[in-house]
Amino acid sequence: MDNYEKTIKRDNIYSGKVVKLDVETVLLPNNNKAKREIVRHPGAVAILPINNNKEIYFVKQYRKAIEMELLEVPAGKLEYNESPSLCALRELQEEIGFTASKLTLLGKFYSSPGFSNEIIYVYKAEGLVKSKLATDDDEFIDVIKYSDRESIAMLNEGLIMDAKTAIALSLGLNL
Amino acid sequence: MDNYEKTIKRDNIYSGKVVKLDVETVLLPNNNKAKREIVRHPGAVAILPINNNKEIYFVKQYRKAIEMELLEVPAGKLEYNESPSLCALRELQEEIGFTASKLTLLGKFYSSPGFSNEIIYVYKAEGLVKSKLATDDDEFIDVIKYSDRESIAMLNEGLIMDAKTAIALSLGLNL
Repeated sequence: MDNYEKTIKRDNIYSGKVVKLDVETVLLPNNNKAKREIVRHPGAVAILPINNNKEIYFVKQYRKAIEMELLEVPAGKLEYNESPSLCALRELQEEIGFTASKLTLLGKFYSSPGFSNEIIYVYKAEGLVKSKLATDDDEFIDVIKYSDRESIAMLNEGLIMDAKTAIALSLGLNL
Repeated sequence: MDNYEKTIKRDNIYSGKVVKLDVETVLLPNNNKAKREIVRHPGAVAILPINNNKEIYFVKQYRKAIEMELLEVPAGKLEYNESPSLCALRELQEEIGFTASKLTLLGKFYSSPGFSNEIIYVYKAEGLVKSKLATDDDEFIDVIKYSDRESIAMLNEGLIMDAKTAIALSLGLNL
Protein backbone atom coordinates (compact mmCIF):
# COMPACT_ATOMS: atom_id res chain seq x y z
CA MET A 1 0.00 0.00 0.00
CA ASP A 2 2.95 2.35 -0.67
CA ASN A 3 0.94 4.25 -3.21
CA TYR A 4 -2.18 4.64 -1.05
CA GLU A 5 -4.36 7.66 -1.82
CA LYS A 6 -6.12 9.15 1.19
CA THR A 7 -9.56 10.68 0.61
CA ILE A 8 -9.75 14.29 1.76
CA LYS A 9 -13.20 15.07 0.41
CA ARG A 10 -16.00 13.10 -1.22
CA ASP A 11 -18.78 14.64 -3.33
CA ASN A 12 -21.67 12.40 -4.28
CA ILE A 13 -22.74 13.60 -7.72
CA TYR A 14 -25.46 11.04 -8.49
CA SER A 15 -27.15 7.99 -7.02
CA GLY A 16 -29.13 6.01 -9.57
CA LYS A 17 -30.68 2.60 -10.03
CA VAL A 18 -27.48 1.02 -11.38
CA VAL A 19 -24.58 3.32 -10.56
CA LYS A 20 -23.49 6.00 -8.12
CA LEU A 21 -20.97 8.64 -9.08
CA ASP A 22 -18.60 10.12 -6.50
CA VAL A 23 -15.82 12.61 -7.08
CA GLU A 24 -13.13 12.30 -4.44
CA THR A 25 -10.25 14.63 -3.72
CA VAL A 26 -7.27 12.50 -2.70
CA LEU A 27 -3.79 13.06 -1.32
CA LEU A 28 -1.15 11.46 -3.57
CA PRO A 29 2.07 9.87 -2.25
CA ASN A 30 3.95 13.07 -3.27
CA ASN A 31 1.46 15.17 -1.24
CA ASN A 32 -0.13 16.64 -4.35
CA LYS A 33 -3.89 16.58 -4.55
CA ALA A 34 -5.87 14.92 -7.33
CA LYS A 35 -9.52 14.26 -8.22
CA ARG A 36 -10.80 10.72 -8.71
CA GLU A 37 -14.08 10.12 -10.52
CA ILE A 38 -15.51 6.88 -9.15
CA VAL A 39 -18.49 4.97 -10.55
CA ARG A 40 -19.83 2.69 -7.83
CA HIS A 41 -21.66 -0.46 -8.94
CA PRO A 42 -23.18 -3.33 -6.92
CA GLY A 43 -21.15 -6.00 -8.78
CA ALA A 44 -22.32 -8.61 -11.24
CA VAL A 45 -22.09 -12.22 -12.34
CA ALA A 46 -21.50 -13.76 -15.76
CA ILE A 47 -22.22 -17.39 -16.54
CA LEU A 48 -20.87 -19.71 -19.25
CA PRO A 49 -23.70 -22.27 -19.66
CA ILE A 50 -22.47 -25.48 -21.39
CA ASN A 51 -24.74 -28.42 -22.15
CA ASN A 52 -23.76 -32.08 -22.54
CA ASN A 53 -23.20 -31.58 -26.30
CA LYS A 54 -20.58 -28.90 -25.52
CA GLU A 55 -22.87 -26.17 -26.78
CA ILE A 56 -22.87 -22.76 -25.14
CA TYR A 57 -25.87 -20.50 -24.64
CA PHE A 58 -25.36 -16.82 -25.43
CA VAL A 59 -27.70 -13.86 -25.20
CA LYS A 60 -27.97 -11.04 -27.67
CA GLN A 61 -29.33 -7.77 -26.34
CA TYR A 62 -29.40 -4.11 -27.20
CA ARG A 63 -26.92 -2.14 -25.11
CA LYS A 64 -27.90 1.51 -24.98
CA ALA A 65 -24.44 2.65 -23.82
CA ILE A 66 -22.89 1.48 -27.10
CA GLU A 67 -26.04 1.80 -29.26
CA MET A 68 -25.79 -1.73 -30.63
CA GLU A 69 -26.73 -5.35 -29.98
CA LEU A 70 -23.99 -7.36 -28.32
CA LEU A 71 -23.42 -11.11 -28.04
CA GLU A 72 -22.72 -11.96 -24.39
CA VAL A 73 -22.91 -14.84 -21.96
CA PRO A 74 -25.87 -14.54 -19.56
CA ALA A 75 -25.09 -11.99 -16.85
CA GLY A 76 -26.67 -9.64 -14.37
CA LYS A 77 -26.26 -7.33 -11.42
CA LEU A 78 -26.07 -8.56 -7.84
CA GLU A 79 -29.13 -7.64 -5.84
CA TYR A 80 -28.73 -6.25 -2.35
CA ASN A 81 -27.18 -8.92 -0.08
CA GLU A 82 -27.45 -11.59 -2.80
CA SER A 83 -24.67 -14.18 -2.98
CA PRO A 84 -22.92 -14.37 -6.38
CA SER A 85 -23.75 -18.06 -6.89
CA LEU A 86 -27.47 -17.54 -6.22
CA CYS A 87 -27.40 -14.53 -8.53
CA ALA A 88 -25.82 -16.74 -11.22
CA LEU A 89 -28.62 -19.30 -10.89
CA ARG A 90 -31.28 -16.57 -10.95
CA GLU A 91 -29.84 -14.98 -14.09
CA LEU A 92 -29.57 -18.37 -15.84
CA GLN A 93 -33.25 -18.87 -15.20
CA GLU A 94 -34.26 -15.32 -16.16
CA GLU A 95 -32.16 -15.02 -19.28
CA ILE A 96 -32.05 -18.49 -20.85
CA GLY A 97 -34.61 -20.52 -18.86
CA PHE A 98 -32.31 -23.17 -17.40
CA THR A 99 -31.30 -24.45 -14.00
CA ALA A 100 -27.82 -25.90 -13.48
CA SER A 101 -26.72 -28.74 -11.20
CA LYS A 102 -23.05 -27.69 -11.23
CA LEU A 103 -21.65 -24.17 -10.88
CA THR A 104 -17.87 -23.56 -10.94
CA LEU A 105 -16.30 -20.17 -10.16
CA LEU A 106 -13.78 -19.44 -12.93
CA GLY A 107 -12.59 -16.18 -11.38
CA LYS A 108 -13.54 -12.69 -10.31
CA PHE A 109 -12.49 -9.57 -12.14
CA TYR A 110 -12.67 -5.79 -11.93
CA SER A 111 -14.10 -4.65 -15.25
CA SER A 112 -12.72 -1.08 -15.22
CA PRO A 113 -10.68 -0.45 -12.07
CA GLY A 114 -9.47 2.94 -13.36
CA PHE A 115 -12.88 4.48 -12.73
CA SER A 116 -15.27 1.85 -11.34
CA ASN A 117 -15.46 -0.65 -8.49
CA GLU A 118 -17.59 -3.11 -10.49
CA ILE A 119 -16.49 -6.69 -9.84
CA ILE A 120 -17.74 -9.56 -12.01
CA TYR A 121 -17.88 -13.15 -10.74
CA VAL A 122 -17.48 -15.48 -13.73
CA TYR A 123 -19.02 -18.97 -13.48
CA LYS A 124 -19.24 -22.06 -15.62
CA ALA A 125 -22.67 -23.76 -15.42
CA GLU A 126 -23.13 -27.44 -16.26
CA GLY A 127 -25.84 -30.03 -15.77
CA LEU A 128 -28.34 -27.74 -17.48
CA VAL A 129 -32.04 -28.57 -17.16
CA LYS A 130 -34.73 -26.65 -19.03
CA SER A 131 -37.06 -24.78 -16.68
CA LYS A 132 -39.53 -21.97 -17.18
CA LEU A 133 -38.25 -18.76 -18.77
CA ALA A 134 -38.83 -15.94 -16.31
CA THR A 135 -37.69 -12.85 -18.17
CA ASP A 136 -37.86 -9.37 -16.68
CA ASP A 137 -40.74 -7.42 -18.21
CA ASP A 138 -38.45 -4.77 -19.61
CA GLU A 139 -35.62 -7.03 -20.82
CA PHE A 140 -35.49 -7.96 -24.51
CA ILE A 141 -33.08 -10.81 -25.06
CA ASP A 142 -32.50 -13.35 -27.82
CA VAL A 143 -30.92 -16.68 -26.83
CA ILE A 144 -28.43 -18.20 -29.29
CA LYS A 145 -26.49 -21.47 -29.06
CA TYR A 146 -23.01 -22.15 -30.50
CA SER A 147 -20.68 -25.15 -30.20
CA ASP A 148 -17.53 -24.79 -28.12
CA ARG A 149 -15.39 -24.72 -31.27
CA GLU A 150 -17.58 -22.11 -32.94
CA SER A 151 -17.40 -19.99 -29.79
CA ILE A 152 -13.61 -20.08 -29.61
CA ALA A 153 -13.42 -19.34 -33.35
CA MET A 154 -15.63 -16.27 -32.81
CA LEU A 155 -13.33 -15.13 -30.00
CA ASN A 156 -10.22 -15.59 -32.14
CA GLU A 157 -11.83 -13.80 -35.09
CA GLY A 158 -12.73 -10.73 -33.04
CA LEU A 159 -16.48 -11.36 -33.09
CA ILE A 160 -16.76 -11.44 -29.28
CA MET A 161 -16.54 -7.83 -28.12
CA ASP A 162 -17.79 -8.19 -24.55
CA ALA A 163 -14.97 -8.44 -22.01
CA LYS A 164 -16.69 -10.79 -19.53
CA THR A 165 -17.70 -13.12 -22.39
CA ALA A 166 -14.10 -13.24 -23.67
CA ILE A 167 -12.92 -14.13 -20.15
CA ALA A 168 -15.63 -16.77 -19.65
CA LEU A 169 -14.74 -18.49 -22.94
CA SER A 170 -10.97 -18.27 -22.34
CA LEU A 171 -11.12 -19.68 -18.83
CA GLY A 172 -14.10 -22.01 -19.19
CA LEU A 173 -13.22 -23.95 -22.33
CA ASN A 174 -10.18 -26.14 -22.74
CA LEU A 175 -9.83 -26.75 -26.47
CA MET B 1 -31.64 -4.04 -34.25
CA ASP B 2 -35.04 -5.51 -33.28
CA ASN B 3 -34.51 -4.49 -29.70
CA TYR B 4 -33.43 -0.92 -30.45
CA GLU B 5 -34.11 1.63 -27.70
CA LYS B 6 -34.89 5.12 -28.94
CA THR B 7 -33.73 8.04 -26.79
CA ILE B 8 -36.59 10.37 -25.82
CA LYS B 9 -34.66 12.56 -23.41
CA ARG B 10 -31.04 12.92 -22.35
CA ASP B 11 -29.87 14.57 -19.12
CA ASN B 12 -26.17 15.21 -18.73
CA ILE B 13 -25.50 14.78 -15.01
CA TYR B 14 -21.73 15.26 -14.97
CA SER B 15 -18.80 15.93 -17.30
CA GLY B 16 -15.44 15.21 -15.71
CA LYS B 17 -11.84 14.60 -16.67
CA VAL B 18 -12.31 10.87 -17.22
CA VAL B 19 -16.05 10.15 -17.46
CA LYS B 20 -19.34 11.77 -18.39
CA LEU B 21 -22.60 10.59 -16.90
CA ASP B 22 -25.83 10.81 -18.88
CA VAL B 23 -29.25 9.58 -17.86
CA GLU B 24 -31.39 8.80 -20.88
CA THR B 25 -35.09 8.07 -21.05
CA VAL B 26 -35.64 5.46 -23.74
CA LEU B 27 -38.57 3.86 -25.50
CA LEU B 28 -38.46 0.05 -25.18
CA PRO B 29 -39.65 -2.36 -27.92
CA ASN B 30 -42.90 -2.85 -25.92
CA ASN B 31 -43.42 0.95 -25.87
CA ASN B 32 -42.71 1.17 -22.15
CA LYS B 33 -40.26 3.82 -21.04
CA ALA B 34 -37.07 3.12 -19.08
CA LYS B 35 -34.10 5.06 -17.73
CA ARG B 36 -30.57 4.20 -18.81
CA GLU B 37 -27.59 5.43 -16.78
CA ILE B 38 -24.67 5.75 -19.19
CA VAL B 39 -21.05 6.40 -18.23
CA ARG B 40 -19.24 7.77 -21.28
CA HIS B 41 -15.50 7.17 -21.50
CA PRO B 42 -12.95 8.07 -24.22
CA GLY B 43 -11.77 4.45 -24.61
CA ALA B 44 -8.47 2.89 -23.64
CA VAL B 45 -5.66 0.58 -24.64
CA ALA B 46 -4.00 -2.30 -22.78
CA ILE B 47 -0.67 -3.77 -23.83
CA LEU B 48 0.92 -7.17 -23.15
CA PRO B 49 4.67 -6.43 -23.38
CA ILE B 50 6.73 -9.61 -23.93
CA ASN B 51 10.51 -9.63 -24.22
CA ASN B 52 12.72 -12.18 -26.03
CA ASN B 53 12.98 -14.28 -22.86
CA LYS B 54 9.18 -14.65 -22.81
CA GLU B 55 8.91 -12.40 -19.77
CA ILE B 56 5.95 -10.05 -19.37
CA TYR B 57 6.03 -6.59 -17.83
CA PHE B 58 3.20 -5.76 -15.43
CA VAL B 59 2.42 -2.61 -13.49
CA LYS B 60 1.15 -2.44 -9.95
CA GLN B 61 -0.75 0.69 -9.01
CA TYR B 62 -3.19 1.91 -6.41
CA ARG B 63 -6.74 2.02 -7.75
CA LYS B 64 -8.85 4.41 -5.73
CA ALA B 65 -12.15 2.96 -7.01
CA ILE B 66 -11.38 -0.38 -5.33
CA GLU B 67 -9.11 0.97 -2.56
CA MET B 68 -6.30 -1.48 -3.32
CA GLU B 69 -3.22 -2.04 -5.45
CA LEU B 70 -3.87 -4.09 -8.58
CA LEU B 71 -1.53 -6.01 -10.89
CA GLU B 72 -2.30 -5.04 -14.49
CA VAL B 73 -0.70 -4.91 -17.89
CA PRO B 74 0.29 -1.37 -18.94
CA ALA B 75 -2.77 0.57 -20.06
CA GLY B 76 -4.17 4.03 -20.45
CA LYS B 77 -6.91 6.26 -21.79
CA LEU B 78 -7.05 7.42 -25.39
CA GLU B 79 -6.36 11.11 -25.76
CA TYR B 80 -8.55 13.21 -28.01
CA ASN B 81 -8.12 12.06 -31.65
CA GLU B 82 -5.28 9.68 -30.70
CA SER B 83 -5.05 6.39 -32.62
CA PRO B 84 -5.11 3.29 -30.40
CA SER B 85 -1.73 2.02 -31.66
CA LEU B 86 0.03 5.33 -30.96
CA CYS B 87 -1.65 5.42 -27.55
CA ALA B 88 -0.29 1.91 -26.89
CA LEU B 89 3.28 2.99 -27.74
CA ARG B 90 2.91 6.13 -25.59
CA GLU B 91 1.65 4.17 -22.59
CA LEU B 92 4.45 1.57 -22.97
CA GLN B 93 6.96 4.39 -22.77
CA GLU B 94 5.21 6.22 -19.91
CA GLU B 95 4.50 3.19 -17.75
CA ILE B 96 7.41 0.79 -18.27
CA GLY B 97 9.97 2.81 -20.26
CA PHE B 98 10.11 0.70 -23.42
CA THR B 99 9.54 1.14 -27.11
CA ALA B 100 8.31 -1.81 -29.21
CA SER B 101 9.12 -2.70 -32.81
CA LYS B 102 6.07 -4.96 -33.21
CA LEU B 103 2.51 -4.27 -32.07
CA THR B 104 -0.29 -6.80 -32.71
CA LEU B 105 -3.97 -6.08 -32.02
CA LEU B 106 -5.35 -9.04 -30.04
CA GLY B 107 -8.90 -7.70 -29.95
CA LYS B 108 -11.16 -4.90 -28.78
CA PHE B 109 -13.65 -5.25 -25.97
CA TYR B 110 -16.38 -3.35 -24.16
CA SER B 111 -15.44 -3.49 -20.48
CA SER B 112 -18.96 -2.92 -19.04
CA PRO B 113 -21.52 -2.54 -21.82
CA GLY B 114 -24.41 -2.60 -19.33
CA PHE B 115 -23.60 0.92 -18.17
CA SER B 116 -20.54 2.24 -20.03
CA ASN B 117 -19.33 2.75 -23.60
CA GLU B 118 -15.67 2.20 -22.66
CA ILE B 119 -13.87 0.15 -25.32
CA ILE B 120 -10.42 -1.30 -24.70
CA TYR B 121 -8.03 -2.13 -27.54
CA VAL B 122 -5.76 -4.98 -26.39
CA TYR B 123 -2.30 -5.24 -27.97
CA LYS B 124 0.70 -7.54 -27.74
CA ALA B 125 4.02 -5.66 -27.88
CA GLU B 126 7.24 -7.37 -28.96
CA GLY B 127 10.72 -6.26 -29.97
CA LEU B 128 11.02 -4.27 -26.76
CA VAL B 129 13.86 -1.75 -26.45
CA LYS B 130 14.62 0.13 -23.23
CA SER B 131 14.06 3.86 -23.58
CA LYS B 132 13.66 6.67 -21.09
CA LEU B 133 10.92 6.31 -18.48
CA ALA B 134 8.54 9.24 -18.90
CA THR B 135 6.04 8.78 -16.10
CA ASP B 136 3.20 11.22 -15.49
CA ASP B 137 3.96 13.42 -12.47
CA ASP B 138 0.94 12.17 -10.58
CA GLU B 139 1.16 8.48 -11.49
CA PHE B 140 2.72 6.09 -8.99
CA ILE B 141 3.48 2.78 -10.62
CA ASP B 142 5.70 -0.19 -9.82
CA VAL B 143 6.93 -2.31 -12.75
CA ILE B 144 7.15 -6.08 -12.17
CA LYS B 145 8.29 -8.83 -14.55
CA TYR B 146 7.01 -12.43 -14.64
CA SER B 147 7.70 -15.31 -17.02
CA ASP B 148 4.92 -16.42 -19.38
CA ARG B 149 4.36 -19.58 -17.32
CA GLU B 150 4.23 -17.66 -14.04
CA SER B 151 1.73 -15.26 -15.58
CA ILE B 152 -0.60 -18.01 -16.77
CA ALA B 153 -0.29 -19.73 -13.38
CA MET B 154 -1.33 -16.47 -11.66
CA LEU B 155 -4.33 -16.23 -13.98
CA ASN B 156 -5.38 -19.82 -13.29
CA GLU B 157 -4.91 -19.35 -9.54
CA GLY B 158 -7.16 -16.29 -9.41
CA LEU B 159 -4.35 -13.82 -8.71
CA ILE B 160 -5.12 -11.70 -11.79
CA MET B 161 -8.20 -9.67 -10.94
CA ASP B 162 -8.10 -7.09 -13.70
CA ALA B 163 -10.34 -7.98 -16.67
CA LYS B 164 -8.20 -6.46 -19.46
CA THR B 165 -5.10 -8.22 -18.04
CA ALA B 166 -6.91 -11.58 -17.99
CA ILE B 167 -7.91 -11.05 -21.64
CA ALA B 168 -4.41 -9.94 -22.69
CA LEU B 169 -2.85 -13.05 -21.11
CA SER B 170 -5.50 -15.42 -22.48
CA LEU B 171 -5.28 -14.14 -26.04
CA GLY B 172 -1.62 -13.15 -26.15
CA LEU B 173 0.08 -16.26 -24.80
CA ASN B 174 -0.09 -19.67 -26.38
CA LEU B 175 1.16 -22.10 -23.75
